[in-house]
Amino acid sequence: MRVLLVGASGIIGRAVATELGRRHELISAGRNSGDVQMDITDVESIKAAFKKVGRIDAVVSAAGVVKFAPLEAMAAADYEIGLNDKLMGQVNLVLIGRESISDAGSFTLTSGVLDADPIRFGSSASMVNGAINAFVVAAAIEMPRALRINAVSPGVIEEALGGFAPYFRGFEPVPAARAALAYSKSVEGAQTGQIYRVL
Amino acid sequence: MRVLLVGASGIIGRAVATELGRRHELISAGRNSGDVQMDITDVESIKAAFKKVGRIDAVVSAAGVVKFAPLEAMAAADYEIGLNDKLMGQVNLVLIGRESISDAGSFTLTSGVLDADPIRFGSSASMVNGAINAFVVAAAIEMPRALRINAVSPGVIEEALGGFAPYFRGFEPVPAARAALAYSKSVEGAQTGQIYRVL
Repeated sequence: MRVLLVGASGIIGRAVATELGRRHELISAGRNSGDVQMDITDVESIKAAFKKVGRIDAVVSAAGVVKFAPLEAMAAADYEIGLNDKLMGQVNLVLIGRESISDAGSFTLTSGVLDADPIRFGSSASMVNGAINAFVVAAAIEMPRALRINAVSPGVIEEALGGFAPYFRGFEPVPAARAALAYSKSVEGAQTGQIYRVL
Repeated sequence: MRVLLVGASGIIGRAVATELGRRHELISAGRNSGDVQMDITDVESIKAAFKKVGRIDAVVSAAGVVKFAPLEAMAAADYEIGLNDKLMGQVNLVLIGRESISDAGSFTLTSGVLDADPIRFGSSASMVNGAINAFVVAAAIEMPRALRINAVSPGVIEEALGGFAPYFRGFEPVPAARAALAYSKSVEGAQTGQIYRVL
């Protein structure tokens, strides 16, 4: 398969590249690196990247930013960051990418554990993850041409924990390579409308 | 209690007014009707309404619009409608209303069944409902002053079904008065971070 991997330079993206790269042709995309450049907050940038890439069989997104801050310090504009980036950035990969994807192709988005298991400072992440998961479940039933869509919802990634550890006490860190298996299941399996929780 | 009821003129709002009005002082808010006017998509309008209302003990929102359309016809701007209105409109009631609410006061938002049980044309509603629910779960753990926050997630409301019935075949309609009980539980009970699913 030809797989477009968005967010390929991130910790999850690199693990997905290792897993899927063994068996598939990967085209990596990133804001400042990769085979094609793409800013997921910019619809024109997404369109230009898909045009450059041409026909593909799967889109995998491990991209998206949200703001972490205490609830008391969060204003509407702080939530807009995550809504425009991690949520609508990934949704726009679907809305635009559907023009470039083969019949029975798949979209795999990334949400995360905080929708169901919240932490301090994480209200925007929770909001966005809940939105992604529900979008995926709904979009799956309306996809044309046997297109599929799933989300991977990993726990806190071990290699990304670093200085964030105090915010995730008691969370069992997930090695990126374990999370990457769920992306493989989504791309190489036949399921749709699934939220793969890797905890 | 003094309860600000946003969306008071809607089908759910009127049922909530009947239920809570028996025991509490209600201040009704609506875009074009009610004791105070408030457009939840306009932060300045929300601020002005709260200023006019003064100190309150509970905020109940039964307001919010999303766009229903086939997935294939949905573009980013169509999702923005629901994100700005039903999602951030209600979130802004919390972010702004927290300045006006008494210690141990409560916020009750409205999501809906489609996050978990999607229908055709409902991908924006699903997205927004999933976002609201996850926000509520997360915000609850960071609320200061013993403030509480819950969401009511009703099934399709019997009195609202009308011409939409073909989109909701097989859904058991929920009388608005039954849904209203969940708002009462949220306002008059002591729970927080709950999603009351009324199915």
